[in-house]
Amino acid sequence: MTEQASDVFSDLAQAMPGSPAVSAHLVIFGATGDLAVRKIYPALASLCHNSLLSPAMRIVAVGRTPLATHAYVQNLRPRLEPTIPAPCLENLLPRITYLGMDPTEPGAAAELSTLLDTMDAGQTHTRIFYFAVPPTAYASLAMRLGEAGLGREKPGQAVRLVVEKPFGRDLASAKELDWVLHHFFSEEQIFRIDHYMAKETVQNVLFLRFANVLFEPLWNRRYIDHISITAAESLGVGRRAEFYDQAGVLRDMFQNHMMMLLALCAMEPPSSFEAELVRDERSKVYRALRSLDISHLPENLVLGQYGPGTIQGQPVPGYTQEPGIAPDSTTPTFAWMRVFLDNWRWHGVPFYMCSGKRLAEKRTEIAIHFKDVPISMFHQSKDPHIPANRLILGIYPDELVRLEIQTKGHGSHTITHTQAMDFMYGASSTDRIDDYAKVLLDCIIGDQTLFWRQDAVELCWSFLTPILEHCNCPEHAVPLHQYPAGSLGPERPVKSTAFANCEKE
Amino acid sequence: MTEQASDVFSDLAQAMPGSPAVSAHLVIFGATGDLAVRKIYPALASLCHNSLLSPAMRIVAVGRTPLATHAYVQNLRPRLEPTIPAPCLENLLPRITYLGMDPTEPGAAAELSTLLDTMDAGQTHTRIFYFAVPPTAYASLAMRLGEAGLGREKPGQAVRLVVEKPFGRDLASAKELDWVLHHFFSEEQIFRIDHYMAKETVQNVLFLRFANVLFEPLWNRRYIDHISITAAESLGVGRRAEFYDQAGVLRDMFQNHMMMLLALCAMEPPSSFEAELVRDERSKVYRALRSLDISHLPENLVLGQYGPGTIQGQPVPGYTQEPGIAPDSTTPTFAWMRVFLDNWRWHGVPFYMCSGKRLAEKRTEIAIHFKDVPISMFHQSKDPHIPANRLILGIYPDELVRLEIQTKGHGSHTITHTQAMDFMYGASSTDRIDDYAKVLLDCIIGDQTLFWRQDAVELCWSFLTPILEHCNCPEHAVPLHQYPAGSLGPERPVKSTAFANCEKE
Repeated sequence: MTEQASDVFSDLAQAMPGSPAVSAHLVIFGATGDLAVRKIYPALASLCHNSLLSPAMRIVAVGRTPLATHAYVQNLRPRLEPTIPAPCLENLLPRITYLGMDPTEPGAAAELSTLLDTMDAGQTHTRIFYFAVPPTAYASLAMRLGEAGLGREKPGQAVRLVVEKPFGRDLASAKELDWVLHHFFSEEQIFRIDHYMAKETVQNVLFLRFANVLFEPLWNRRYIDHISITAAESLGVGRRAEFYDQAGVLRDMFQNHMMMLLALCAMEPPSSFEAELVRDERSKVYRALRSLDISHLPENLVLGQYGPGTIQGQPVPGYTQEPGIAPDSTTPTFAWMRVFLDNWRWHGVPFYMCSGKRLAEKRTEIAIHFKDVPISMFHQSKDPHIPANRLILGIYPDELVRLEIQTKGHGSHTITHTQAMDFMYGASSTDRIDDYAKVLLDCIIGDQTLFWRQDAVELCWSFLTPILEHCNCPEHAVPLHQYPAGSLGPERPVKSTAFANCEKE
Repeated sequence: MTEQASDVFSDLAQAMPGSPAVSAHLVIFGATGDLAVRKIYPALASLCHNSLLSPAMRIVAVGRTPLATHAYVQNLRPRLEPTIPAPCLENLLPRITYLGMDPTEPGAAAELSTLLDTMDAGQTHTRIFYFAVPPTAYASLAMRLGEAGLGREKPGQAVRLVVEKPFGRDLASAKELDWVLHHFFSEEQIFRIDHYMAKETVQNVLFLRFANVLFEPLWNRRYIDHISITAAESLGVGRRAEFYDQAGVLRDMFQNHMMMLLALCAMEPPSSFEAELVRDERSKVYRALRSLDISHLPENLVLGQYGPGTIQGQPVPGYTQEPGIAPDSTTPTFAWMRVFLDNWRWHGVPFYMCSGKRLAEKRTEIAIHFKDVPISMFHQSKDPHIPANRLILGIYPDELVRLEIQTKGHGSHTITHTQAMDFMYGASSTDRIDDYAKVLLDCIIGDQTLFWRQDAVELCWSFLTPILEHCNCPEHAVPLHQYPAGSLGPERPVKSTAFANCEKE
């Protein structure tokens, strides 16, 4: 076992004394779909590879196609072979039982319940229901499971429900979905995944801040000028055209990933690194979010849609020329937003959030821009301004921590040079546990720290919904700027925003 | 010209408008000696190589050996050829005029004066008198120069005097030397060299502190637990036996280099990076030095002398077996000292200074040890203590800035790993200007920032003299510990002191 894996292992052992690998059964709804094949099975393989999967764990694959288990596995094998090593695959496939059914049909859930009871064989295994189905099916699926009594936990047996974004498409629909989920499941049972949270660098934001005495004293409005959060993609809308054209960048990126990164940067230290305490602090950040002034939106919100352009020398079509997108679509594929947090720590410090498709490069990072030194005592001959320090938390392409400091120019008494001090994560990426695997492991051991809680979901929708409604007005005040694919996106009202500012290494 | 050199060049051009390379004549007393050949001529060559030497500059080499200039140059050439590239040597040697004289004899200085006047040929050139002679000759040499009127500056002509440590051997002798120097020369004319100050990393301490907003808010008793200043040598007493046995480690290292490093770490920000303002702040540090309590010396002072041992697998003799050292010598070759500064910034923060010969390795560094985080919220399973941050300013073997931070263990939510973020100076060392050259350049342009001012010299002697006197008492309370050559030195009363704590890279 790798050292990293053994760390996780010891976490796990600590969480569940006496049982190093928790015995859980996993039910995958949408088992013939893309998410299951591309993410869930490889994640299970990663856990298996690191000896983190209990031998007793069974997998129930639920799909609408009527198939025997044998046939399902036969179809599945060649789709997994390219990514999963043979020993893991042989460990994994025999665990699968396939159920060909529409789980929202009456009686289907009862059949599943019977199967699970049989599998338990008198023992109590944690049951994880993974909703790898379209979000529109979440409510009815949850209702059927609940009606069949599958939300109820027996003593010593946990039942968990895993859902992926989007959690609604505005405040009202999010509350509606939540009403259904909470009718049969408690908040402790619902694991709302944000896969950004599985990334080492993202989780490391809290470690950097709270396991080092260096940063926290500087982490406030006295020393920080602004914070840029960037998630730029060079890809276009791809296979997700139908969903994306309904959602747009604000629902697709801001309501979840961008807001999560914002909370990690801005939250107060919890008294302990426990799920509820950490999630309390994240929600407090959203409560401090100042609503965007709808009458002055263009100062704080820039929307764009990519036109035709060039990515890495290849011509690519514009958004409205993409298959599945209406030629007159006004869905934004780019957004830049300036937000403020009205609390003691951050009052007056702008947070620039920027995300878009078909930009010049794929780059995800948080950049802490510190203030200038109060005086420049070195009287530089070339440039009297000393560049401010920056702390870059890189998520993609490199998972790194970079501190940009000023040092003395060689031989000179008065000239400063900007130098980078780097720490790179994942130099030995082969040893690492797959992102989805970590999320799945947290579901198995029941750690909700990295997952969205409903109050945070609603607080973010409360912030975004008025903006979304305003943008949807026929005569909305926020113009939709066209930008060429492969560019840096439309111009922003503030020069120093993250993406345009990123130096390449 | 290299980029680094052009930086210096622009400094210089700024300092002396219209004259990029200041026209100065250099008089080297002790021109046949070791220092001249090993340091001063190579430094001049380095300036020459970087086009920083005015074509008008002449060199007057003064030595006791009666020689014609021609013969001196003929002797000098083979001693310089191994280190100085041919074009520089050919540029340098024709500038030399040799004067064979004892400059402390009556009339000698007058002869020198006449020569310099002839060289001036009606123009005014800055005159630099470099005392590359034993410190015992400083006073009489200065007096002769002064009596001959060589201390007087004509309009537009600067006269400067360069001396190297030691500046006296205690407070009284330092004041005595100063009285003589100041009889004929003003403080602005006296350049007391500390060659540690020529090192990039040493000068960079102030840049790091005052050109970055990151460090200064943390640079105080609230966040710093202690600071370790280490100058460990693996060499023995070598050719300096006679001098060293009279001096010992306290005079040889603490009175100058260690105290200089202390001041750079501890000083308040000057309002501008000007020589007098910077030197004012350094002196303020020495004024805040708390006198060691003589009645409790062993708690704050550890002295040692190396015995026989092994360095890099080779047996080496003990100090008292070295040629030129008396077999019953009680001169310390190692000292560790804990000092406190009684001011608002540093009250209660110990500074550990440690220096010695024949230690396990040559290592010079300043280590800022920050305090622990107030709480460890991560409840580590292996070790509940999160290691504190350290900032290492490495001077030797590597000129580097290293920040030790805590990051998240891969895959684990709760385990921290110590990681180093490094910035290395001098990756391109061929481009760099020689340390002594920088010091010489500062003499030429008249910048005293890096040099010792008399008040600081006296303040340091005021601190050290009582300790030296006490150690010299026959029944002194500070034992002289023997330590084997190649070891880490005698035990110290505090565990976490720099040298023993240094991880190798």
